[in-house]
Amino acid sequence: MATTTATVAETCAAGKRAARELARASTEAKNRALEATARLLEGRTAEILDANAADLADERAVDLTEALRDRLTLNEDRIGAMAEGARAIAALADPIGEELEHKDLASGLDLRKVRVPLGVVAVVYEARPNVTIDCAALTVKSGNAIVLRGSSYAERSNGALAAIVREALEEAGLSQDAVLLLPATASRDDLTELATQDGVVDLLIPRGGEGLKAALKGVATVPVMYAAAGNCHVYVHSDADLEMARRIAYNAKVQRPGVCNAAETLLVHAAIANRFLPDTLADLHAAGVELLGDERARELAGEVEVGAAGDADWGTEYLDLKMVVGVVDSLDEAVDHINSHGTSHSEAIVTSSEDAAGSFAAGVDAAVVYTNASTRFTDGFEFGMGAEIGNSTQKLHARGPIGLRELTTYKYVVRGNGQVRE
Amino acid sequence: MATTTATVAETCAAGKRAARELARASTEAKNRALEATARLLEGRTAEILDANAADLADERAVDLTEALRDRLTLNEDRIGAMAEGARAIAALADPIGEELEHKDLASGLDLRKVRVPLGVVAVVYEARPNVTIDCAALTVKSGNAIVLRGSSYAERSNGALAAIVREALEEAGLSQDAVLLLPATASRDDLTELATQDGVVDLLIPRGGEGLKAALKGVATVPVMYAAAGNCHVYVHSDADLEMARRIAYNAKVQRPGVCNAAETLLVHAAIANRFLPDTLADLHAAGVELLGDERARELAGEVEVGAAGDADWGTEYLDLKMVVGVVDSLDEAVDHINSHGTSHSEAIVTSSEDAAGSFAAGVDAAVVYTNASTRFTDGFEFGMGAEIGNSTQKLHARGPIGLRELTTYKYVVRGNGQVRE
Repeated sequence: MATTTATVAETCAAGKRAARELARASTEAKNRALEATARLLEGRTAEILDANAADLADERAVDLTEALRDRLTLNEDRIGAMAEGARAIAALADPIGEELEHKDLASGLDLRKVRVPLGVVAVVYEARPNVTIDCAALTVKSGNAIVLRGSSYAERSNGALAAIVREALEEAGLSQDAVLLLPATASRDDLTELATQDGVVDLLIPRGGEGLKAALKGVATVPVMYAAAGNCHVYVHSDADLEMARRIAYNAKVQRPGVCNAAETLLVHAAIANRFLPDTLADLHAAGVELLGDERARELAGEVEVGAAGDADWGTEYLDLKMVVGVVDSLDEAVDHINSHGTSHSEAIVTSSEDAAGSFAAGVDAAVVYTNASTRFTDGFEFGMGAEIGNSTQKLHARGPIGLRELTTYKYVVRGNGQVRE
Repeated sequence: MATTTATVAETCAAGKRAARELARASTEAKNRALEATARLLEGRTAEILDANAADLADERAVDLTEALRDRLTLNEDRIGAMAEGARAIAALADPIGEELEHKDLASGLDLRKVRVPLGVVAVVYEARPNVTIDCAALTVKSGNAIVLRGSSYAERSNGALAAIVREALEEAGLSQDAVLLLPATASRDDLTELATQDGVVDLLIPRGGEGLKAALKGVATVPVMYAAAGNCHVYVHSDADLEMARRIAYNAKVQRPGVCNAAETLLVHAAIANRFLPDTLADLHAAGVELLGDERARELAGEVEVGAAGDADWGTEYLDLKMVVGVVDSLDEAVDHINSHGTSHSEAIVTSSEDAAGSFAAGVDAAVVYTNASTRFTDGFEFGMGAEIGNSTQKLHARGPIGLRELTTYKYVVRGNGQVRE
């Protein structure tokens, strides 16, 4: 790729030029690029697998944990899923040009508020090659250029995948530079350069570890959307269907513990703790979950071993088969606990009362508040947004899954016939 | 006020508690507080004027320029206008609780995307006491608490005005701490403390000088919405109604030169420059505007004195009776110039062609793009938003006037009947 010898600033500037063009591209052209991406992914599966095999065989990848090697690994099914993802995004409505408001102003001006692309979106991501396609497909459809900064572990896989999208863009008559991959040798200096391209990079999205986010917080001068940690809670109210609560607590913790929408804390109303906890904790223990609890939870744990929770445990995102369990005396106490210790990601109540559900939803300050469902549903695909580029726990701009609309801004287009201000 | 002896952190924490309450307040209660504010402003005009007179008589205020003293000065009319403003905001629709989306998900979950308040909004502002009421009224209506950090020049005026809103809140049965005024002795250290209240201050809006914004950029860890400078342009296309263009250029520069939506640059298509410039520049000159220009503009200026524009002039927000004038050979050149030198605030084209208007609106990357109107209309009141707390030139979250909706975020409220993720 041409970008491997360019500086970060030069690459971003090329992205800016491409962004100006892509902002005006037709829905048809953008969809053609996504369909071509899907076709090329399927047609060149062998080539992509070769590149991926080389990444996996690289001595740098030897020390990776099994879980990380799994995330790095591609196979025919996973490449097929990427192609399906690109087609699914092509099938979504184009957000660009959507008229958000139309008003006749007192001055006689005609005002329209119109959805437009952000411009250049930069994504820094972990060693998961499929993210290359997911992110590029979302930015192409939303009329943005993307600058990808992948992990060096996935260097060859990402190169093969980005090359396919660039070829697809050209086939669709669009600028290849709408998708740019920074060289895998990118150092922390290069990351700083990327995070300080004021006026060029319109949004930087760091995915992955907290270390990366902390590093960026110190240096970034471009707008950043932090996908912060998810310290999610399941609260079982006094009137909960206990069998439902047991399934939800289990699913929220066990089904995929390493993701941000998995639950880390189980809160239980004192009135049902003695009936609810023994079986539920036994389930969790049987699934290999290490349990910590407050005094009352430990007393009610029955034969299950529950360690003593320290203060820090209530604020920790374990991302692992580990959970902290507390007993509360009221819904308000649960809400206060969640607002004090949570990260405003996804919070669930299990209750049979509309009132309790309403109080919980109103009182908890989080991107997503569930009644009688697992926290694990916070996801762009599950939310009917097609895909997501990450999950936002901040309040400004976008909250929850970041999909097509969340990659846009708006512009006021105002028409007059000579109006001046008195 | 109780807050004068509290630390910045304590004041913000009090605001957070009040914000939780105000988020659930009824539209009626919030409107009662705004109506009571208006009534108390009118009933206590003499008291407010006394406080303002003391601010103006303070030795600190002696060295202020005439323009700054004017901004600091209150009178019966201005207090009446504040009361009217509070009533106008009461009359606006309540944005809180608005359902932005409602979907039945494939999993059977019922998803609603609901507008909610941000929480605690902090505003740092210049010595304009009316801003106290404007900002407090907008945050009360949008269900947010506000922490105000005014100028020490306006200490007594702001104190009198904030006390009135607090009394009005109490009268309406709402927490007084939804409106908090930091002591006027607040130093730069206090500003840093305010800008680092992570998890407490949900949005910080610095109004006023670039120095303040630069200082905050270095230290702020809470989300900040910068109301950046407005280097606005008027571009006169080759097919413009030249009489209209002359009025628009004049209005955009002269009507109120010290504000961010005033124009700083006039760009003129070469085909009409010889017919347009002499009279227009003579008008501007007669109004006391100091003119700078490129070579062609200077040649066509006729008898008007036009200095040579340096490179920096094209990027300067004069906020004064000063303007730089350039001749371009095409609409594309004008768009490129604006995208290179502008600040994405407000940009205008004068043209009689739909095509040219469309190309300009699509090509210029700014919050507001005008056809055949003055840039001076970028304002919350003019846009039918009732009022504004500032004007955003960033792309994330809010662009252009910051009114009620721009002071909100959203929350996904998801209802299930036991759904777990497979």
